[in-house]
Amino acid sequence: MKANAERIEGGVLAAKGFSAGAAYCGLKTASDALDIAVLVSDRPAAASAVYSQNQVVGAPIIVDRHRLPSAGIRGLVVNSGNANDCTGESGVRNAERMCSLAAGQFNVPEETFVVSSTGIIGVPLPMAKIRRGIKMACEAIGKSREHEDAFARAIMTTDTRTKQYAVKLKLGGAEVYIGGAAKGSGMIAPNMATMLCYVTTDADLCLSDLSKMVRRVADRSFNCITVEGHTSPSDTLLVMANGASGVKVRGKELVSFESALEEVCVDLSKQMVGDGEGATKLVTVNVTGTHTDALAKTVAMAIANSPLVKTAIHGGDPNWGRIVTAAGNVGVPFEDVDVELLISGVKAFSRGRPLTRNEARLAERMKLSEIVLDLRIGKGPGKATVWTCDFSREYITINADYHT
Amino acid sequence: MKANAERIEGGVLAAKGFSAGAAYCGLKTASDALDIAVLVSDRPAAASAVYSQNQVVGAPIIVDRHRLPSAGIRGLVVNSGNANDCTGESGVRNAERMCSLAAGQFNVPEETFVVSSTGIIGVPLPMAKIRRGIKMACEAIGKSREHEDAFARAIMTTDTRTKQYAVKLKLGGAEVYIGGAAKGSGMIAPNMATMLCYVTTDADLCLSDLSKMVRRVADRSFNCITVEGHTSPSDTLLVMANGASGVKVRGKELVSFESALEEVCVDLSKQMVGDGEGATKLVTVNVTGTHTDALAKTVAMAIANSPLVKTAIHGGDPNWGRIVTAAGNVGVPFEDVDVELLISGVKAFSRGRPLTRNEARLAERMKLSEIVLDLRIGKGPGKATVWTCDFSREYITINADYHT
Repeated sequence: MKANAERIEGGVLAAKGFSAGAAYCGLKTASDALDIAVLVSDRPAAASAVYSQNQVVGAPIIVDRHRLPSAGIRGLVVNSGNANDCTGESGVRNAERMCSLAAGQFNVPEETFVVSSTGIIGVPLPMAKIRRGIKMACEAIGKSREHEDAFARAIMTTDTRTKQYAVKLKLGGAEVYIGGAAKGSGMIAPNMATMLCYVTTDADLCLSDLSKMVRRVADRSFNCITVEGHTSPSDTLLVMANGASGVKVRGKELVSFESALEEVCVDLSKQMVGDGEGATKLVTVNVTGTHTDALAKTVAMAIANSPLVKTAIHGGDPNWGRIVTAAGNVGVPFEDVDVELLISGVKAFSRGRPLTRNEARLAERMKLSEIVLDLRIGKGPGKATVWTCDFSREYITINADYHT
Repeated sequence: MKANAERIEGGVLAAKGFSAGAAYCGLKTASDALDIAVLVSDRPAAASAVYSQNQVVGAPIIVDRHRLPSAGIRGLVVNSGNANDCTGESGVRNAERMCSLAAGQFNVPEETFVVSSTGIIGVPLPMAKIRRGIKMACEAIGKSREHEDAFARAIMTTDTRTKQYAVKLKLGGAEVYIGGAAKGSGMIAPNMATMLCYVTTDADLCLSDLSKMVRRVADRSFNCITVEGHTSPSDTLLVMANGASGVKVRGKELVSFESALEEVCVDLSKQMVGDGEGATKLVTVNVTGTHTDALAKTVAMAIANSPLVKTAIHGGDPNWGRIVTAAGNVGVPFEDVDVELLISGVKAFSRGRPLTRNEARLAERMKLSEIVLDLRIGKGPGKATVWTCDFSREYITINADYHT
């Protein structure tokens, strides 16, 4: 799958023809923070996005859904510190205004810009600050590593570190670049720490190929991670392909490109989970043996979202009982005698019984910072992998002790 | 609904013809604890039960499912400290042996006894201790308040207090008693702190009426509570009706009886949630306005199981955003402009926007030990109520810091 793609340094500016700028306009409290950014293509790009499935969506998504997919997108404007969500009609007008302000700086039509916001909800955007911020971000624009780092920092809320990943791959003898930046998946009151991910590429893709690919890749990456099973109203994955490499990706090469795009999105997904609120361990849950992949994913998600499993992992307890009963809790039928569970490669449960002789080795494995659960619950062909993190006291502190 | 029933002191011995005994046989570590008990009827009772829906069930449930429903049950034997779950074929034989040992003490057929176990899983029952324990519990048998308290204590695991409730009601000029004891709903490693509830009544009911009633009442009580959305392999609600009052409950009187039984089960359910692991607040979630009751329950359970909602409530934060987006997260369609949320009687969110003017009053209400969330998400006739508790640092401590 990954044969063609080689990981390189970088993020949203790895691909040719993109530039970015960021600024501080007073939406966050720390004055050394960045809270507004633009990401611009020097030519029209094919762009497609997938959004939060929550019934409640933020104003930016209401606006973007009208503009995407599109073959003529020129840029994105994004702010952190205020999600512009649950802000009514005027919130939608403010989101549109952000696009027109940014587009105005580059003398392009306002419909060629899309918008994201993340942060506190239910509070109107302070548009005077936003206006000044967009101007400053556009003035600060550039193409260096420093500029892409600034973009990655400006979209952060409760994240403790930036999340970036880029690859280059050879397609038809030429080089194509794909890179992205993302922000975290925990939610924090009154902020909703939305999951945002922006991926750019200089490949030339048909809009319809890109749109289908983005949906499939999202299902195999961002839709396979969970911190607490709660999607925010602003979750967005946006992919822009501007064709600046001159490489047309068509036919069979779409498969290679898609696997490279998946590599970028999976890595950014795992970075998100690894930086979940209070997280100390990255947990991979592999489920096999169900009738269908969908059933395997249902079981894997039930394990990944179980507070009992997540607290046990935090405490270093190889608690096979919680894992097996979390699997048994979602209506997917199995017999406990058909169950086999490995924890980071060591057998913990088999044929309806725990393997008590492995207890010491299991306890050792639980000390690792990455835990892998392999659960087989039958003989069917279904399989799924999801990623999550542990549940710590710090998670409660972050989420309980914030007061509005 | 409750017109007829009057709450009285007591638990499983409130009804005529029942007696109980408890003892310590070394399954728990504290030597002043009780860990084994019997509950006996002086005549054959109609008995029906509902069990855990988990795919993994304990040996006692495998045994009981063969014996219930039955018109001729004489008693129950129950131990705490070991769940006899994930113990294979020999576990099932041990569960049957517990019934025969208890039945032998009263010279009744072994099939007239049922069995429960709660505690550590995956460890064979120490049958020498169990045998001695059953003998001691049977010798300690009696009908006083002290005996029913001992029974309620002997079934506890991580519970911090006993859970009992009893009512009397007049049916056809005569008095009938219903009473029960229950144990907690949290799960703790490596124990599974199973939810167990035993209700006795001296009413005379047909077995088929009783069985249908038990299923309906479970759906309106124990199936409406959640601590972390994880059912254990041993969850059991058992109702025994021995007819010792001489009052035949038939026809219209079944409705009055059922509402009294529901009152007992709802109160015991709420006691369980209020004593959830680390719980400091009891939370009632009312959802209305969906097309069906089932959809309302889906939404209410999503809110009640959301770690984000539960940590916010723990922290005293009136976090309307988490509540509304938890509701929006389960695929039940609604428009945010149709949403109205009251937190303990104060409006927090209406027509797609938070009511910022109510912030101070909301913060006051959040200090109460009982929090009521009233969420309307449309104009449909569907409604549901579920109960849960908050999520505290103590929950993480209990669940993460235990080491096998």
